[in-house]
Amino acid sequence: MIIVMQRGASDAEIDAVVARIREHGLSEHVSKGSERTIIGAIGDERPLEPRHFEPLPGVERALHVVKPYRLVSRETQPEDTVVSIHGVRIGGPQLQVIAGPCSVETPEQMALSAAGVRAAGCRMMRGGAFKPRTSPYSFQGLGVEGLELLLAAARPAGLPVVTELMDVRMLDTFMEHDVDVIQIGARNMQNFDLLKEVGRINKPVVLKRGLANTVSEWLMAAEYIAAGGNHHIILCERGIRTFETAYRNTLDLTAVMVAKRESHLPVIVDPSHAGGKAWMVPQLARAAIAAGADGLLIEMHPSPCDAWCDADQALSPAELAELMDSLRLIAQAVGRTL
Amino acid sequence: MIIVMQRGASDAEIDAVVARIREHGLSEHVSKGSERTIIGAIGDERPLEPRHFEPLPGVERALHVVKPYRLVSRETQPEDTVVSIHGVRIGGPQLQVIAGPCSVETPEQMALSAAGVRAAGCRMMRGGAFKPRTSPYSFQGLGVEGLELLLAAARPAGLPVVTELMDVRMLDTFMEHDVDVIQIGARNMQNFDLLKEVGRINKPVVLKRGLANTVSEWLMAAEYIAAGGNHHIILCERGIRTFETAYRNTLDLTAVMVAKRESHLPVIVDPSHAGGKAWMVPQLARAAIAAGADGLLIEMHPSPCDAWCDADQALSPAELAELMDSLRLIAQAVGRTL
Amino acid sequence: MIIVMQRGASDAEIDAVVARIREHGLSEHVSKGSERTIIGAIGDERPLEPRHFEPLPGVERALHVVKPYRLVSRETQPEDTVVSIHGVRIGGPQLQVIAGPCSVETPEQMALSAAGVRAAGCRMMRGGAFKPRTSPYSFQGLGVEGLELLLAAARPAGLPVVTELMDVRMLDTFMEHDVDVIQIGARNMQNFDLLKEVGRINKPVVLKRGLANTVSEWLMAAEYIAAGGNHHIILCERGIRTFETAYRNTLDLTAVMVAKRESHLPVIVDPSHAGGKAWMVPQLARAAIAAGADGLLIEMHPSPCDAWCDADQALSPAELAELMDSLRLIAQAVGRTL
Amino acid sequence: MIIVMQRGASDAEIDAVVARIREHGLSEHVSKGSERTIIGAIGDERPLEPRHFEPLPGVERALHVVKPYRLVSRETQPEDTVVSIHGVRIGGPQLQVIAGPCSVETPEQMALSAAGVRAAGCRMMRGGAFKPRTSPYSFQGLGVEGLELLLAAARPAGLPVVTELMDVRMLDTFMEHDVDVIQIGARNMQNFDLLKEVGRINKPVVLKRGLANTVSEWLMAAEYIAAGGNHHIILCERGIRTFETAYRNTLDLTAVMVAKRESHLPVIVDPSHAGGKAWMVPQLARAAIAAGADGLLIEMHPSPCDAWCDADQALSPAELAELMDSLRLIAQAVGRTL
Repeated sequence: MIIVMQRGASDAEIDAVVARIREHGLSEHVSKGSERTIIGAIGDERPLEPRHFEPLPGVERALHVVKPYRLVSRETQPEDTVVSIHGVRIGGPQLQVIAGPCSVETPEQMALSAAGVRAAGCRMMRGGAFKPRTSPYSFQGLGVEGLELLLAAARPAGLPVVTELMDVRMLDTFMEHDVDVIQIGARNMQNFDLLKEVGRINKPVVLKRGLANTVSEWLMAAEYIAAGGNHHIILCERGIRTFETAYRNTLDLTAVMVAKRESHLPVIVDPSHAGGKAWMVPQLARAAIAAGADGLLIEMHPSPCDAWCDADQALSPAELAELMDSLRLIAQAVGRTL
Repeated sequence: MIIVMQRGASDAEIDAVVARIREHGLSEHVSKGSERTIIGAIGDERPLEPRHFEPLPGVERALHVVKPYRLVSRETQPEDTVVSIHGVRIGGPQLQVIAGPCSVETPEQMALSAAGVRAAGCRMMRGGAFKPRTSPYSFQGLGVEGLELLLAAARPAGLPVVTELMDVRMLDTFMEHDVDVIQIGARNMQNFDLLKEVGRINKPVVLKRGLANTVSEWLMAAEYIAAGGNHHIILCERGIRTFETAYRNTLDLTAVMVAKRESHLPVIVDPSHAGGKAWMVPQLARAAIAAGADGLLIEMHPSPCDAWCDADQALSPAELAELMDSLRLIAQAVGRTL
Repeated sequence: MIIVMQRGASDAEIDAVVARIREHGLSEHVSKGSERTIIGAIGDERPLEPRHFEPLPGVERALHVVKPYRLVSRETQPEDTVVSIHGVRIGGPQLQVIAGPCSVETPEQMALSAAGVRAAGCRMMRGGAFKPRTSPYSFQGLGVEGLELLLAAARPAGLPVVTELMDVRMLDTFMEHDVDVIQIGARNMQNFDLLKEVGRINKPVVLKRGLANTVSEWLMAAEYIAAGGNHHIILCERGIRTFETAYRNTLDLTAVMVAKRESHLPVIVDPSHAGGKAWMVPQLARAAIAAGADGLLIEMHPSPCDAWCDADQALSPAELAELMDSLRLIAQAVGRTL
Repeated sequence: MIIVMQRGASDAEIDAVVARIREHGLSEHVSKGSERTIIGAIGDERPLEPRHFEPLPGVERALHVVKPYRLVSRETQPEDTVVSIHGVRIGGPQLQVIAGPCSVETPEQMALSAAGVRAAGCRMMRGGAFKPRTSPYSFQGLGVEGLELLLAAARPAGLPVVTELMDVRMLDTFMEHDVDVIQIGARNMQNFDLLKEVGRINKPVVLKRGLANTVSEWLMAAEYIAAGGNHHIILCERGIRTFETAYRNTLDLTAVMVAKRESHLPVIVDPSHAGGKAWMVPQLARAAIAAGADGLLIEMHPSPCDAWCDADQALSPAELAELMDSLRLIAQAVGRTL
């Protein structure tokens, strides 16, 4: 950590900073510039925080020079992590497209969804049983029944499933039903107790980036899971909140590139929630793969206009199949397979 | 709800929209303009959502004309809600300043804090036992022990306490310890399962606005609590995330004014977390009261420089007392008392 | 325009709104719902603005139902506009990559730049003679001398040039030097007097999106140019300002898709300014083409480390050539040529 | 400036950074930490920019330790600047409220406006003759005629005027008419040629903060004016663009506090444009004064409902007079006079 002193800081003030650095078991390196004295803390600075120094008299600001994340950082593990779900590998040369409806509705809808996912050549399925909804008056998902409908449709089709866990008290149920991949939604990205719990299990986790969280906070949320012992983490970018109102969220592909550079974890993209409109999904999906994403999470519904939620962002089975064809060409262009 | 059809939408497309409106038990009102046909859905439109119409062919967009919140809306209850905590009333003519340390550390620190809060003339105390921290390596709070230290210091001083609940599984413990006011933090504003649980109890709740949540989403989060039967809700603005990096967050006082106009709930402000620097707290606190806030949530620490977290934003007991004096004048200027 | 009345608005208040609609030469359509009365203004609503109605008593809000832009809108012209610069066509099936240094420095640098641009297979060149710099103490560009160095290097290489016009008083100089394409920078996107002036000339204009401007404002800025009679407009997305600090700006490819859907104008992308780092440029460039952009504006410098500005975002001639190869594959994948 | 090297940077890479520091006439200070080597550049670092170092091999990042602004900085001039306009002093103990219509419309409207401004006890008047409008089809202001109407109304009332300059070519006209204070609007905050020109004159300038500009960029824009020799600068906060859509902009009072701490220039606030609704103006105005602003810029119109633009944000003369009364109490509370 570097501590920049105010112009004309006194020796006593400098000594107080040095003392605090030593308290934390680090050593200091004082450099007196023409305008400012700058003090470097030498050693593992991770336990230090700017707030430990900024209140001290004479301190202008304190800044980290090393990244706060450790286990998920590429400095710690240079080679890519590949998460394997019953043989479906995410993070390797082959891209994965996880498709399915926003929410689980009926056995028929799920059977048609599973058929559509397979027909399009996707190897994993998504579906929401527990839905985070802005309004208490909106459909909240079928809950455990929905979980069972999802599995009943996906298992015979040989499709591992991804579904969202919202409430830490439901984790045991997810484990009993042997859900293949647990999704932590954007709104829960900093629900630290939930992160700690999924850090204790041995199941792949899809961690969505929060709507207004930085890449650094996203990686720190992954660090919570990794620190618990669970290293099967898949990051998912799903758009951020900006001033723009012409579309639901702003898909941030730079974040995908930076997350992959800073971390060894696989990163997938959810173009359906980002744009919020079905017509945007194919172009955003192609852009995501071109930017280096390891896969996609896409909403598909057997009959979009009748969907119980997010109807306007779901592709039809035919549109999904068509998208997969165009994605193959992009995958080739960036040296990947689909 | 108003459905705007695309230019040149066909009669069949218009009929399909009308049919869907009727499916939801509402009636329609079709108005053919020179450029566009506009269809109004007449009746209680709350169950309707734009996504029910926007995927239909020929529809350009659909928009709500009434607000999505009901129980917390001023249309439903024109008079202000006043939340009373053992006689301390929030939302009435008297302002309340809730002060205390960011996190509970030691019995001594808490005893000095309680003394400082009382000496300054505040009638309620805050203190964190469970801390949401960006890093898993940062101090996470003392947990239940911290809760007990907080109560042990506040009870004899006659100060009701406000403390944060992060994990739904801890709610029983909070009830057993008879915590006076439960705080839902900014990161949990849309942790819907947590909102539902605090909606089932009969205790005041402070609901902080999320870092990137609109006033409408904030009121819908309050609606979750109210829909469960708990109407003792206090809203708290604590700054939003913007492009500015010169301070931690941007305090949004317009949101305080709009929330009070749209809703009957009391609204308080946390200037300490918003600015992130102790020097900013007094000015932001005065501005919040001038803007019409019903109270403040302020960090105070017996010796800020030694605080275990957020040291740089805590006031000393002397600074808190001084702030209270200046707030009295502002309160008078806006026709309130302190 | 739709005017939503407050609950319980009086007939007198409704009549006042109707009167104002008629004042503007439109007719009204009053629909009384169960909760609200909604009034539609029928006719060309473009001269109307919400602010004409929202101050009237009893009005809750007023909203446009048609888009404010006219000449640049796809409703007005369904087929794509193709801008031709000495035979180089932007907006057609062939993609264009405009490359060159951030700022013009020396004859040698420009000669090497022109050679690098041609060698990579690009057909147009960029270079800044007038530089918008945050600090008055930073290099402000070589001005007219820079303009001449740019043309002296590009003309013999047969490369039309794009360069930024900041000051309306320099327009004549740009015309005398017969600059091929005039760039309006992000900071000047709403410099309306400058837009009006370039609207009066008959030269292609690259209009960059402002750092915090919506797609609608961007198209309205283009409307200013078109309204003056100049229809040779090329839109350029260069990243927006968000809360993220890990990269300079957030490239917004959804905006490219929406601008192309809403308008018939060609849209290109500047990945160099968006990311701010050379390593990000190739991936962002590929993503932009995959998302449907009509071309790219890329910084290239014969020796990046010695560049006088934005050194860290410039590609070397070799990197540019390599990028062009990978872009060919992406272009094919989306049915375009390079 | 501090240059942080990548982990394992070679001595050759470190030497290259040192060489570049010396090239710029500074000396270096190399400190080898356990994880990173950090190099400090000693001397006046202002000419240096991170982009001079970040492209060099082995460099992780470079950061400034001193602020980029000089003339406008409080380090350069500790005491407050007070700008005097014909005896009306802005930046001293007395607050100034500058009121008037959004745009100049008719002689009658201006006469009534001037009377209303005086009657309320304000000492300066505002009015727009040149209007920056998002749409080319909206009223663009009366231009020079408007300027003359403004002066014709204000002069006899003894009110110095503030009016916006959009086009650098109009500066002479503003000087010939002896406009008392020239306003640079938010959209032109980084119109650097315009800033340079108003830097050459000897007239007070109100510099509005851009909708998405940081406090640092705002002060650098003021530095452009000061660097030209004009030190009569008044900063004006008018709200920033955020994700919130319930009001036009988000008034950022923290920026006012930080600008006054970092700079010696007076800072005023425009609550009318920030909120965009007349009902918000009084509360935001009181909050601004409580936060330490030196004055206000407020829209007032003799009959708001008939205003040609921004009708919904203008106060009536009676509302302005009422606001002034309440502001007196706030001014007292913060030790100022009105």
